[in-house]
Amino acid sequence: MDLNEEAVQLHKKLKGKITTSLRGDVTPDTLKLFYSPGVGAASKYAQGSKDKLKEVSWTNNLVAVISDGSAVLGLGDLGPYGAMPVMEGKSMLFKHFADIDSVPIVLDVHTADEIVAAVKAIAPSFGGINLEDIAAPKCFEIEERLKSELDIPVMHDDQHGTAIVVLAALINAMKVVGKELNECKVTVSGVGAAGVAVMKLLKLYAPEVKILAVDSKGIIGNNRSDLNETKQQLIDDGVLTADSAGSLVDAAVEADVFIGLSQAGVLKPEMVKSMATDPIIFGLANPVPEIMPDVAKQAGAAIVATGRSDFPNQINNVLGFPGIFRGALDNGVRKITNDHKIAAAKALASMVENPTAEEIIPNPFAEGIVKTIAKTIV
Amino acid sequence: MDLNEEAVQLHKKLKGKITTSLRGDVTPDTLKLFYSPGVGAASKYAQGSKDKLKEVSWTNNLVAVISDGSAVLGLGDLGPYGAMPVMEGKSMLFKHFADIDSVPIVLDVHTADEIVAAVKAIAPSFGGINLEDIAAPKCFEIEERLKSELDIPVMHDDQHGTAIVVLAALINAMKVVGKELNECKVTVSGVGAAGVAVMKLLKLYAPEVKILAVDSKGIIGNNRSDLNETKQQLIDDGVLTADSAGSLVDAAVEADVFIGLSQAGVLKPEMVKSMATDPIIFGLANPVPEIMPDVAKQAGAAIVATGRSDFPNQINNVLGFPGIFRGALDNGVRKITNDHKIAAAKALASMVENPTAEEIIPNPFAEGIVKTIAKTIV
Repeated sequence: MDLNEEAVQLHKKLKGKITTSLRGDVTPDTLKLFYSPGVGAASKYAQGSKDKLKEVSWTNNLVAVISDGSAVLGLGDLGPYGAMPVMEGKSMLFKHFADIDSVPIVLDVHTADEIVAAVKAIAPSFGGINLEDIAAPKCFEIEERLKSELDIPVMHDDQHGTAIVVLAALINAMKVVGKELNECKVTVSGVGAAGVAVMKLLKLYAPEVKILAVDSKGIIGNNRSDLNETKQQLIDDGVLTADSAGSLVDAAVEADVFIGLSQAGVLKPEMVKSMATDPIIFGLANPVPEIMPDVAKQAGAAIVATGRSDFPNQINNVLGFPGIFRGALDNGVRKITNDHKIAAAKALASMVENPTAEEIIPNPFAEGIVKTIAKTIV
Repeated sequence: MDLNEEAVQLHKKLKGKITTSLRGDVTPDTLKLFYSPGVGAASKYAQGSKDKLKEVSWTNNLVAVISDGSAVLGLGDLGPYGAMPVMEGKSMLFKHFADIDSVPIVLDVHTADEIVAAVKAIAPSFGGINLEDIAAPKCFEIEERLKSELDIPVMHDDQHGTAIVVLAALINAMKVVGKELNECKVTVSGVGAAGVAVMKLLKLYAPEVKILAVDSKGIIGNNRSDLNETKQQLIDDGVLTADSAGSLVDAAVEADVFIGLSQAGVLKPEMVKSMATDPIIFGLANPVPEIMPDVAKQAGAAIVATGRSDFPNQINNVLGFPGIFRGALDNGVRKITNDHKIAAAKALASMVENPTAEEIIPNPFAEGIVKTIAKTIV
């Protein structure tokens, strides 16, 4: 049975991945405390206060995983029903890795205004909101508005979770090859939600790093007349260099690092050979990376990472979001800031004591990851 | 420690009443099936189909308990934070009594249009929707629109759950006193969500029953110039008699049944004495009923029921909603109809083999209630 068939069968057998359980026994004696009339006193206690409510309800440990299904994994717009298995999976990972209660919510509305309105409407039900698999560029506006209008932590994991884990891996990769990120040229293939967030975080962490971003039309620069607001902003904010131009082939030349958040197979061996010494390749397209690890190695790559568990150096968001929300919930953090993201990436990198080409990032099942990251979200 | 203090302390100790659990172990081997890349196949399987999604996600057994907090128990408008402990309690009861997974959702929007929009937006996440503690009269429009616009069962429990349990109790009370509901005069005090639904269901079950409805201004009838649309509709639909007029005192005279869904203490002993022979009194205001059972008995009541667990004949919604949603989920029922409600009430009444004045309705913890009701929701 192939992996896909096996996955569908397992989902059918279990009829879902999460369930609810009770924190106390319902008996004739407790019923009057858990429900009417006693519960009325808990309700009056919580009235008008998110913090008081946290004391008497599950919202203290509860994150919603919310998607409109417009960009599910690499599969595109699958709509709300198609999105649910992924969101329920994410809720499962929240529970397994961080003991966070989590509810998957899929939305049947699709404009930024409608999504913001729906999430704001249900926000008092939760202690935090993980946005997931919402297409760029609307995801940027949605996250920004929700962050500013809600008083609970909101994070679009495709952006920031990915950026944090990539930065952590890159911190250790730099140690392995003996380079400074501030002196490096980094080529990023793919300028969607993840690509944009990765570039912004790298630039914050290492202000002198030179970044080239490449989308399906070539290198992003001022010569392009087709840039959307998000891409133009990357130039205006100095994340990218205004006068850059050319193709992905051009962008690879003399690059120290290639980060692929785009499509299977776009990085060719000749392009790896044109990179600087000890090239670092993160091919994160899923399930088939921008270049297969053995091909990249043969073309001279010093370090290769992918999104897959069947090769070394798996760059997986599950290394980030459980600890980030664990920290935010435990420490009453209402906004996840850039400082938090950099601190989390450093903490995650520190989990590998002696980085090597085969181990720049810990295994998702390694002990202590969630705790180590959570301490930095204060 | 009084009941209220005890309830708050228990809520604080448990930090909530529900939690999430996993239906499978997350290991390196299962991670690739539960999450990327394998979950993508489950997502493609579910794309565009609520029914296919039910096969591979928890939505097959999932009910949202949704409130805007505008009419929490008898406490009034407590807002979303104040509503959450009650909604989480309801989710707890869904799990305990019917093994239904349930998520409490409190809304930070309050007009009918906004509530309908928010619930429709999140509806693909659930297999059914239990509306709760939404104030009348907006609750009527909200439920009606959601029922017609969504393809999953939607029920406002304050209306229909209450009506079903009241009808069940009344069916057995009639047996005890040897009367026919079709020949009775029923006085209903309180014309909110529950009162309106009770009257409509009684009239459907027994078309010849004579119902008088009394609100804070007196008996509802065509002489009143202050009736809202809902109250006027009760006259126009023939649920109430157009030419009725007077006060609650007048309405009690010669009544066979008094149903209180209003306020503590409004039914006086003299009024009970003015009722027909073998008067039946349901004083359902919580926590203090319209008349205390011992006072009612002393004034000649044949049967007394309340909403309380410390007297005989507790009319409690928990006798209804778990079985109704259990049946709707198991049998793929997309609309809960009037026929369902009457069938559920008869089934619930049948759970008491030999009704007596002290037992017209089963105890919520009696075996088989959920199963018996669920069979009627087909």
